[in-house]
Amino acid sequence: MADILASLRSLMASQSPPLDALLVPSEDYHQSEYVSARDKRREFVSGFTGSAGLALITKNEARLWTDGRYFLQATQQLSDQWKLMRIGEDPSLDVWISDNLQKEAAIGIDPWCVSVDTAQRWERAFAKKNQKLVQTSTNLVDEIWKNRPPAEINPAVDHPLEFAGRSVAEKLKALREKLSSEKARGIIITALDEVAWLYNIRGSDVSYSPVVHAFAIVTLNSAFLYVDKRKVSSKVSSSLQANGIEVREYGVVSSDAAMLASNQLDQATGVNFGQNGVCQNDTCDNDLIWVDAASCCYALFSKLDANKVLLQQSPLALAKALKNPVELDGLKNAHIRDGAAVVQYLVWLDKQMQEIYGASGYFLEGEVTSKKIPETMKLTEVSVSDKLEGFRASKEHFRGLSFPTISSVGPNAAIIHYSPQAKTCAELDPNSIYLFDSGAQYLDGTTDITRTVHFGKPSAHEKACYTSVLKGHIALGNAQFPNGTNGYSLDILARIPLWRYGLDYRHGTGHGIGSYLNVHEGPHQISFRPQARNVPLQVSMTVTDGYMYYCIAEVITNRIRKFLFPEPGYYEDGNFGIRLENVLVIKEADTEFNFGDKGYLSFEHITWVSLSLCDIIHLSLPHINHVASAGPG
Amino acid sequence: MADILASLRSLMASQSPPLDALLVPSEDYHQSEYVSARDKRREFVSGFTGSAGLALITKNEARLWTDGRYFLQATQQLSDQWKLMRIGEDPSLDVWISDNLQKEAAIGIDPWCVSVDTAQRWERAFAKKNQKLVQTSTNLVDEIWKNRPPAEINPAVDHPLEFAGRSVAEKLKALREKLSSEKARGIIITALDEVAWLYNIRGSDVSYSPVVHAFAIVTLNSAFLYVDKRKVSSKVSSSLQANGIEVREYGVVSSDAAMLASNQLDQATGVNFGQNGVCQNDTCDNDLIWVDAASCCYALFSKLDANKVLLQQSPLALAKALKNPVELDGLKNAHIRDGAAVVQYLVWLDKQMQEIYGASGYFLEGEVTSKKIPETMKLTEVSVSDKLEGFRASKEHFRGLSFPTISSVGPNAAIIHYSPQAKTCAELDPNSIYLFDSGAQYLDGTTDITRTVHFGKPSAHEKACYTSVLKGHIALGNAQFPNGTNGYSLDILARIPLWRYGLDYRHGTGHGIGSYLNVHEGPHQISFRPQARNVPLQVSMTVTDGYMYYCIAEVITNRIRKFLFPEPGYYEDGNFGIRLENVLVIKEADTEFNFGDKGYLSFEHITWVSLSLCDIIHLSLPHINHVASAGPG
Repeated sequence: MADILASLRSLMASQSPPLDALLVPSEDYHQSEYVSARDKRREFVSGFTGSAGLALITKNEARLWTDGRYFLQATQQLSDQWKLMRIGEDPSLDVWISDNLQKEAAIGIDPWCVSVDTAQRWERAFAKKNQKLVQTSTNLVDEIWKNRPPAEINPAVDHPLEFAGRSVAEKLKALREKLSSEKARGIIITALDEVAWLYNIRGSDVSYSPVVHAFAIVTLNSAFLYVDKRKVSSKVSSSLQANGIEVREYGVVSSDAAMLASNQLDQATGVNFGQNGVCQNDTCDNDLIWVDAASCCYALFSKLDANKVLLQQSPLALAKALKNPVELDGLKNAHIRDGAAVVQYLVWLDKQMQEIYGASGYFLEGEVTSKKIPETMKLTEVSVSDKLEGFRASKEHFRGLSFPTISSVGPNAAIIHYSPQAKTCAELDPNSIYLFDSGAQYLDGTTDITRTVHFGKPSAHEKACYTSVLKGHIALGNAQFPNGTNGYSLDILARIPLWRYGLDYRHGTGHGIGSYLNVHEGPHQISFRPQARNVPLQVSMTVTDGYMYYCIAEVITNRIRKFLFPEPGYYEDGNFGIRLENVLVIKEADTEFNFGDKGYLSFEHITWVSLSLCDIIHLSLPHINHVASAGPG
Repeated sequence: MADILASLRSLMASQSPPLDALLVPSEDYHQSEYVSARDKRREFVSGFTGSAGLALITKNEARLWTDGRYFLQATQQLSDQWKLMRIGEDPSLDVWISDNLQKEAAIGIDPWCVSVDTAQRWERAFAKKNQKLVQTSTNLVDEIWKNRPPAEINPAVDHPLEFAGRSVAEKLKALREKLSSEKARGIIITALDEVAWLYNIRGSDVSYSPVVHAFAIVTLNSAFLYVDKRKVSSKVSSSLQANGIEVREYGVVSSDAAMLASNQLDQATGVNFGQNGVCQNDTCDNDLIWVDAASCCYALFSKLDANKVLLQQSPLALAKALKNPVELDGLKNAHIRDGAAVVQYLVWLDKQMQEIYGASGYFLEGEVTSKKIPETMKLTEVSVSDKLEGFRASKEHFRGLSFPTISSVGPNAAIIHYSPQAKTCAELDPNSIYLFDSGAQYLDGTTDITRTVHFGKPSAHEKACYTSVLKGHIALGNAQFPNGTNGYSLDILARIPLWRYGLDYRHGTGHGIGSYLNVHEGPHQISFRPQARNVPLQVSMTVTDGYMYYCIAEVITNRIRKFLFPEPGYYEDGNFGIRLENVLVIKEADTEFNFGDKGYLSFEHITWVSLSLCDIIHLSLPHINHVASAGPG
């Protein structure tokens, strides 16, 4: 690790201008949530494996910013050379750089790994002290990364119409209409799921997301796919060609973006402009290039004329979120199979817990019979989650998990993004709460479910907390609301029962889910964050209900840090986490009235795994009875 | 009416430049919600008496913009010369002027009657077609208004510390600290309730609000009150003087604002600057003048150097909203007396309804015994509301009503701002819902309460709707929430039970309430409007719960307009409105946990009038039992 920092610093000094600092973000060229092994640059330099974090290397220091989900993990993983910066407690990166680096300092970034939004925010912040954001011409981490995993050549495959539901031609037509209406003549598409959705292709370049490492550029007349051509079979190539999509090498996107800016990209293909470069039709009024500031990398934006850029959320985000009828059928079918796998898992686990650990059974509240357990029979967080994956793998159309399974016993359940490791994970415990949050990719849909269970006798406090979470889950999932309502407004429904106890959770409540695509998908969300106000919830959107949580994790983490450091493995007895999560589809509600002629909406639950029986009976809500009646399997 | 328009047009033509259009807003010089008779200029020119509306007079046309609350009333009151513009349905004023008036048209306003926000918005909108907003040097309506009510000389009175709870000296000190922290050297205060609150004075210049027509300017060293000096007794004058407040004539504020801008206001009083105008102390770094864009008139803003203006919500808005312990005690006491008056009223009304109309009694659901009623015994919306005022007037510290009483039978209850008139109002009806929304001013506090009752047998539908409104009322009033939560988030709690039926209401849910001041008070509110996000709810604020409503009024109004015009008096059988409203005080909640160390808040209901008994028993919520147990009296 010392070598890495020394090599980086030497490389930083050799740049022109020499760099006073280097920023290493977690993101790949596409601002992906999950990145491939060779794109885990921030992990390589810092040793910290969490999904979110930003590393800063100066001449003398190395600091890593991450959020509350990862304080504990970062403390464990960072070496002495690194200092952890806690987002929300310590100074932000902008402030720290301004306060600690000298005037006119040069701060390097690889502009391919930073979004336009982020780069512009940093530029503004650094300008206060005449500090400069410098775009390096190569990625400095890549240069010193000796054993960097090679690029895999995974094939791109067609995503057939029987699952996609909408042809590429239709999608391109709608996109071009949108471009025209916004006076744009082209769009640069960098989000991997948007490329995959638009061109009806899928791949396996990234764990958990069936996407291909690729960019796209679409103009009013042309369409391009930038991808390692070795990934494109002749079959895929010809179906792309049939839709007028030209396949170019991944790296060519950079020069093509410049061509697009100077209005020569269409000219090169001879569609829009004649030999003399004079416009041949009436589309030339449209002179903007559409770029999504949150997902497009700064490198490509920098190729454009900033005055001719339409910085606006990609129109594909909403188009992709509004599922078509074939996608909705697929999602529902995938959830029936997935529900069956999860129910099989729970039945299996319940039996194991009784036979091996003497548990009374799934929330039946009996006393645990103490047993002597042979080492080979012990169940761990990882061994049981492998079993869950096995049940899923037996189902039709299974293509892998949609995110790393969270399988957690007792206090581990209070760590929001807990990721058990085979060697260090906990053993199942009939006296503790067990939480699993997991999902899978099927050809016809993506799934995501969380259940919290107990195989012995939960305490009164655990039951009260479970009931609060369940009340919030029901209040949100049962809501009816007029068109125009956003996820910011609905968010409070999940929290009110927790707030009554002075409990809360620090993250959002619900996210969209893809159709055999990313498990987390926008542009809508159910959250207290301001972004959740931007997009009203609409018929045919998917959303989860939902990522709600009773969490003492933060309290524990703070206590550990303040009083018990360096004993990060310590937890108070009785701490636990509770989360319940279903996938919902937004549909028209059948209300008696229609005040304001707005139309009213409600949710259809498509997750088919029962909740804990005793609570269902106690609450006796029709909605829950619907959800509770397990699907086939 | 024809004369008025002709006179105005002739005056418009004689201006320099000649005006193509004149805007006549509803507001007075202080952007007050309730204005004095002589300030009802928009009512005078148009004949429309509603509280909100904007009149436009061009060379050939006269149009009035108003919102959904007043469509019906405006249709009834406007003459043929006027055209009603329905906000939300017809083009907005900005758009209409741009589309219908010629390029470079001159549109006149009296800059004293328009806020900075509004004037700047109009200027931007009109600029698109090079149209100009012209500030007239006099108010053209005043010039042609022959029988304009004279200015009344109502005395200003001290608001003693036993009710105000905080001395003027303390308030001025806190205000000056706030000015300093924002680099301001002065503030222009135009909102009447802010002037009254800051200087601990009250008056009777405006119906329903115990305020004095006055401006204030406060600098780091000086304080001024601009008021008709005939209103200021020597007693009041000396207590103002004791706090360093100089009383000047109302009209002088204009030239003093200019003096303030050129830094000569303090110089004139010799405090901050020496004879040579050179700064004598370190406060001269502060060079901004604070102006609240929403309440300050454009006339005063225009006297300032725009580059040296801090356009920001007045710091007095929040200071006034955070009630001190004396104010809170006063509010609670006032609500006990007010509750006693309302309970007396309900008991009286219940008896009358039984004796005169043969009703079974307050929500007891019996059959009505048909009776022949002598004309002289008949009860009307106005006669009963006079009785209610009488009960209040008998209570200590009573100083009048806090807004025009809404007293409405059956379908009238569905008109949000229904204002019954003695000659035309409806008779009480034992078979209809009766709604009253009213409040009073007491020396120690302002009240506001709404109840919806039935003295016979409500229909199943009426009961279901009442129960929905009550559920929302309880859900909101019963909420506990962390510090930082705003009224935008809480708003949905009141609506969810209505949304289930496809019902809603178009206005906000809750507003702050003054301490012997305005019945509607910001800066916080509980509403779906974006402004409700700006201010988190905080301990010691008052808020109502609240202005919730089941309303078929809009549906009716639309039907009338589309199908039944000109029969605006027609209503479908069975239409009605339901509203319940309590006043709440925000306090710290006693929660078991304190997740995030944010502190949790809840509401204390200070309204002491029972809700309808059968629902209370049915719901059996402890909160409601608290509210239901009537106060003394």
